[in-house]
Amino acid sequence: MSTAVNLPAVTVLGLGPMGRSLAGAFVKAGLRTTVWNRTPGREGDLAERGAVVAATAEEAVAASELIVICVVNYDASDGILRREEVTRALKGRTVVSLTADTPARARDTAEWAAAHGIGYLDGAIMTPAPSIGTPEAVFLHSGPRDLYARYLPALEALGGTHTHLGEETGRAATFDIALLDIFWTAMAGYAHAVAIARAEGVTAGELAPFAQGIATILPPLFEEFARDADDGTYSGEINPITSAASTMSHVVAVSESHGIDAGVMRSVEGLARRVIGLGHGGDGFMRVAEMLGRH
Amino acid sequence: MSTAVNLPAVTVLGLGPMGRSLAGAFVKAGLRTTVWNRTPGREGDLAERGAVVAATAEEAVAASELIVICVVNYDASDGILRREEVTRALKGRTVVSLTADTPARARDTAEWAAAHGIGYLDGAIMTPAPSIGTPEAVFLHSGPRDLYARYLPALEALGGTHTHLGEETGRAATFDIALLDIFWTAMAGYAHAVAIARAEGVTAGELAPFAQGIATILPPLFEEFARDADDGTYSGEINPITSAASTMSHVVAVSESHGIDAGVMRSVEGLARRVIGLGHGGDGFMRVAEMLGRH
Ligand SMILES: NC(=O)c1ccc[n+]([C@@H]2O[C@H](COP(=O)([O-])OP(=O)(O)OC[C@H]3O[C@@H](n4cnc5c(N)ncnc54)[C@H](OP(=O)(O)O)[C@@H]3O)[C@@H](O)[C@H]2O)c1
Ligand SMILES: NC(=O)c1ccc[n+]([C@@H]2O[C@H](COP(=O)([O-])OP(=O)(O)OC[C@H]3O[C@@H](n4cnc5c(N)ncnc54)[C@H](OP(=O)(O)O)[C@@H]3O)[C@@H](O)[C@H]2O)c1
Repeated sequence: MSTAVNLPAVTVLGLGPMGRSLAGAFVKAGLRTTVWNRTPGREGDLAERGAVVAATAEEAVAASELIVICVVNYDASDGILRREEVTRALKGRTVVSLTADTPARARDTAEWAAAHGIGYLDGAIMTPAPSIGTPEAVFLHSGPRDLYARYLPALEALGGTHTHLGEETGRAATFDIALLDIFWTAMAGYAHAVAIARAEGVTAGELAPFAQGIATILPPLFEEFARDADDGTYSGEINPITSAASTMSHVVAVSESHGIDAGVMRSVEGLARRVIGLGHGGDGFMRVAEMLGRH
Repeated sequence: MSTAVNLPAVTVLGLGPMGRSLAGAFVKAGLRTTVWNRTPGREGDLAERGAVVAATAEEAVAASELIVICVVNYDASDGILRREEVTRALKGRTVVSLTADTPARARDTAEWAAAHGIGYLDGAIMTPAPSIGTPEAVFLHSGPRDLYARYLPALEALGGTHTHLGEETGRAATFDIALLDIFWTAMAGYAHAVAIARAEGVTAGELAPFAQGIATILPPLFEEFARDADDGTYSGEINPITSAASTMSHVVAVSESHGIDAGVMRSVEGLARRVIGLGHGGDGFMRVAEMLGRH
């Protein structure tokens, strides 16, 4: 445990799959680690491995300079942190919130923390619990740069890459929401594609390598389309949105011919049709981002 | 042009961006190439480069053993191929259809071709027009294996990789539809994520590298989730669909707090909520594919 000699003691509030992984990585890196969870008995083997299991949240908070909270959402997080005894115990300490929620909730929590003399950093974890402690883990952070610099060595015990996105508290949650938007929408496309393929007699296993091929063409397109969005150019020379919409209607038709709900693709096609209706049928698909942002 | 000494003469019907690219690649590889397009004058520099521009579709068809058709959809394709003069001229020749449409339309065309003594292969192009003639091009084919073997050397003039998915005519179109489903759904997620990010003060350029990170985690998940779908296991141990749904509702909330239409994510969340409602909240997200296929 000599590696942790300059690292602060840390408390982890919340022992779901992610909280347990975080606490386990801290323990492994040799930080003095205290844990607490609303429902007792969720600490697994953390106590055997050297973590202190606190009986109450205020006791857990009092044990460390750095408090990491990772629960289901900010309703849960507020319920823990904003109880008077806990708020009092937090004074002069720093909370790193790794709970996922909206940017507005993160900003609200930063204000609450400032009003109570509590340091506050907001963060988001972009990779699943088993990635914690490995090079694959991806953490995004936002909030005061000096606090981030002070606690980065401790956070690095969690492995992976840590990126500070700026001082504005909401940035980590904004990136989190945007990236989850991409992730779950893409996964829904995949699940739907598998359903269609199976209805046509193609197994998911047969489709998968080609689906992987589609995933590999996305990164350069994301870069190119980001330029479109930021420059306000939306060239449809190679692929006009009229052509995309025609493709989408084929997907809807095949899906519905098998009685498979095509609601997601109907919504996607609806966006394309609205862009066309606004007179931009010759533009590229990213015109959708611009249209969505207009109001 | 000596490389093409054993390759058949080829006719390309349809000179949109894709048809022009296909014809250009055939010419470049030294195949005797005839082209035709409904609207005259779309051949660009193909004539200068050595292609013969036919005045009518029947004339174009009569010039070659192999006929490649690539127009907007099968309504257009049928309009060209099923005109009596053209059908007559096609007898004894082989049509490779690289027009995108539904598997049902492809099967219908195969039947029509068989009834008229015409060889028929269906195909799909999974990469954009500028990829043609480069190693990046991706072609999927289905139909009689002997015809495919006979014309593969000519098709290889188009560059890229060619995969024969089986003799059942609809397979190329099925893969095409499923892959376009994934592609456009993912792109819609990206466009929406960019709109949300901008509303929160984050540019598309700032988001892009992280969005690329999301794309890179998809391929292993596609493989894992294909196994879930084919085995009928849908483990939610690492990420139960209840947790995914909670994330989705955050995306909807942030989007709508900015007046940004969240219709696509509302549909995606709806699928997750239906799975939960069916009593599978502890399962993983791919349970959606199974639910969609039930009827
Ligand atoms: N798991 C992952 O792979 C992953 C990946 C990236 C991000 N995340 C994020 O990490 C956070 C935690 O996720 P998780 O996977 O550990 O599981 P989770 O199911 O999202 O959260 C479970 C934790 O929340 C607590 N909790 C729920 N409601 C509460 C309440 N009202 N008051 C106090 N505590 C409450 C639970 O306590 P009880 O045991 O008492 O119910 C448990 O500690 C979430 O925001 C999630 O989005 C998770
Ligand atoms: N472009 C790409 O990057 C790409 C990538 C993959 C797959 N594809 C597929 O390739 C096919 C062709 O695409 P494209 O990009 O070349 O452009 P397109 O806009 O999809 O199709 C244009 C072609 O269709 C013809 N056409 C349209 N309606 C017709 C009708 N009623 N009768 C006869 N011809 C008609 C046009 O002739 P006129 O000039 O007379 O209008 C032109 O030759 C489509 O199925 C597309 O999905 C394209």
